[in-house]
Amino acid sequence: MQISPLAPASFPDLPVIEGVRFASGAAGIKYKDRTDVMLAELADGTSVAGVFTRSATRSAPVLDCQSKLEVASTGRAAILVNSGNSNAFTGAAGKESVAAICQSVADATGIHAGRIFTASTGVIGQRLPHDRITEKVADLNAALSPDGIENAARAIMTTDTFAKGATAEVEIDGKTVRIVGIAKGSGMIAPDMATMLVYIFTDAKIAQDDLQTMLRALTDQTFNCITVDSDTSTSDSLMIAATGASGVDVTHSAGFTKALHGVMLDLSHQVVRDGEGATKFVEVRVSGAASDADARKVGLSIANSPLVKTAIAGEDPNWGRIVMAVGKSGAEADRDRLTIHFGDILVAEKGWVSPEYTEEAGATYMKQQDLVIAVDLGIAGGLETIWTCDLTHQYITINADYRS
Amino acid sequence: MQISPLAPASFPDLPVIEGVRFASGAAGIKYKDRTDVMLAELADGTSVAGVFTRSATRSAPVLDCQSKLEVASTGRAAILVNSGNSNAFTGAAGKESVAAICQSVADATGIHAGRIFTASTGVIGQRLPHDRITEKVADLNAALSPDGIENAARAIMTTDTFAKGATAEVEIDGKTVRIVGIAKGSGMIAPDMATMLVYIFTDAKIAQDDLQTMLRALTDQTFNCITVDSDTSTSDSLMIAATGASGVDVTHSAGFTKALHGVMLDLSHQVVRDGEGATKFVEVRVSGAASDADARKVGLSIANSPLVKTAIAGEDPNWGRIVMAVGKSGAEADRDRLTIHFGDILVAEKGWVSPEYTEEAGATYMKQQDLVIAVDLGIAGGLETIWTCDLTHQYITINADYRS
Repeated sequence: MQISPLAPASFPDLPVIEGVRFASGAAGIKYKDRTDVMLAELADGTSVAGVFTRSATRSAPVLDCQSKLEVASTGRAAILVNSGNSNAFTGAAGKESVAAICQSVADATGIHAGRIFTASTGVIGQRLPHDRITEKVADLNAALSPDGIENAARAIMTTDTFAKGATAEVEIDGKTVRIVGIAKGSGMIAPDMATMLVYIFTDAKIAQDDLQTMLRALTDQTFNCITVDSDTSTSDSLMIAATGASGVDVTHSAGFTKALHGVMLDLSHQVVRDGEGATKFVEVRVSGAASDADARKVGLSIANSPLVKTAIAGEDPNWGRIVMAVGKSGAEADRDRLTIHFGDILVAEKGWVSPEYTEEAGATYMKQQDLVIAVDLGIAGGLETIWTCDLTHQYITINADYRS
Repeated sequence: MQISPLAPASFPDLPVIEGVRFASGAAGIKYKDRTDVMLAELADGTSVAGVFTRSATRSAPVLDCQSKLEVASTGRAAILVNSGNSNAFTGAAGKESVAAICQSVADATGIHAGRIFTASTGVIGQRLPHDRITEKVADLNAALSPDGIENAARAIMTTDTFAKGATAEVEIDGKTVRIVGIAKGSGMIAPDMATMLVYIFTDAKIAQDDLQTMLRALTDQTFNCITVDSDTSTSDSLMIAATGASGVDVTHSAGFTKALHGVMLDLSHQVVRDGEGATKFVEVRVSGAASDADARKVGLSIANSPLVKTAIAGEDPNWGRIVMAVGKSGAEADRDRLTIHFGDILVAEKGWVSPEYTEEAGATYMKQQDLVIAVDLGIAGGLETIWTCDLTHQYITINADYRS
């Protein structure tokens, strides 16, 4: 698979986070000649928080993580992720696989099974051959190292075209707090849906409840504002571990919140930039809506519209399709108060195309790789920004032509 | 453009409806060497009813029709439709064009302008050159004929690959009532969204209010249950005219309701069969939902999912993507009570793939042109059926590659 044209130049240089060690290996779950399992060990004092897919058909590992996070606690913990099989829609066997993996990690590391979190990504509806993972756990434990995060990011890829990492540092009370994160998505593995997995690590000190509250709020501004194809995985998981090793309490720190937001936004944009078949990265800015919720409806209606996404793929400044997507969104809208910009170019206002707009200017703008579509509804102050990619032949090829 | 592989063998033989006359002609609005305007004249005694797009950015002709239908009346009427320009998002000029066309039809036919209904389909955001239409109205009026309906169906096509018609007859009290209908959609005209237009004519006798009530209920079971690509036009219009010429009052006739339902279902399926790039016609049957509304959510979630639609295009029996679409629908669902069938083939039940299911059986089924995907949620008695088509390379080609 060719690397996405929207990929960053290289994987970023991620600092070591004190209290976090990584290992990865090849368990042979599905792929040959590559790693497919990663283990992260989290030192005593670590708070863990997570947000997960809201799908009604979520996978066994997601259900297990959610139930474990209901117990507020701090201490040693571990995260084990495999690629190649999502352990989703696998009935009672799925639960047994999760329990077997957690027990083997508990045996090898001495960490309580209730603090061991797993995720699986890949083919759906096939029993996870968990023996292949549990056989490797002792080796993984022996190989744990503070600087194995890039290899961990590679082990959790399915058909992602590049490994995704991001980092931030923030100075608080003269001390440095570090944040690193890795993500996978929206690659696809036949015959299944994309899964997004995100793991963030920091040496900040913060209680689990506060971390969970912060994570949920920031997720709503980052990962919940991206869409590749409107389809929601049964396995989406985002977890954060704060080891406290920096000794810096970040409970009410605006600086830390901002830095974490930056890491999450960066990773979420990388997921869009690896969207299946993507050739354009598109920011959809909606303003002037009756409410933020209405702005979100309009933003998602534009970002998920196959007609808008195919027009972008064809570099066609087809603002009529944007009007259509506003109209169908269900949000309060008035044709005659709508204003549309492509970047700085005024396209339409007062219910019609702007007299100063030219198709040539629009067509030239559309040739850019990164695009901004701004829609002002002219009703009130509701705001939202959504990020998406275009819909291309390559998306069809990946998703329709994969199976032989 | 090649005719859709899902097209019927030929345009049906439609009977004359007493009280209705048609004419069509070439006004040269956008296309060359084809007709692009149709006029239907409706005799005294005719009741007219209509349902229209719920888009917040609907076109000037739609707004005009809606306001005219608020006045309950019976009498002579006319419908004028042009293709090539949708007169949508054209500001105040759009309203002026509608008024000019209605006045010219009123002048030529002697019908009150308040009983003249127009529709426009085609390019958006460009001023409708309505002079080209008004210049032709006298000729159209002179050419009116009881048997011009097939030509009328052709004149309203944009990039539809075939003309769409349907008919039914019902015997009531020893007399025959006839229904005919024509439709256009979901062809595409660069650079714009699909528009669906439907016109149905009957010699039944029924008051406008009763006809409107019947039409709305039947629309919810037919046209509101189809989706090609989840995008909603600014111009969708469905009108019915009942001339009363048969003398048969059908106000509470179950037979007439059933016959009209059949015509509407037939036309709605033809629109799906002409869906852009469609190679498969798919019926999504949902049962066992907590409510009919929940069943509809699940049906639309499956039918609009790009991953489900691309799997169907690839003849891939990818039931995992159906589980995904159920999960993301927002409807009440329980993984372990879900049952999925492809036609008669039991695919999944009790939270896992069925032990008797084989990929070979699924793959063989998927090679059929007409498919049934049945999902039972196992919760309560909610039911809905949705019809859709697959998502293919040709859809991308039509919508992304059209502009040079």
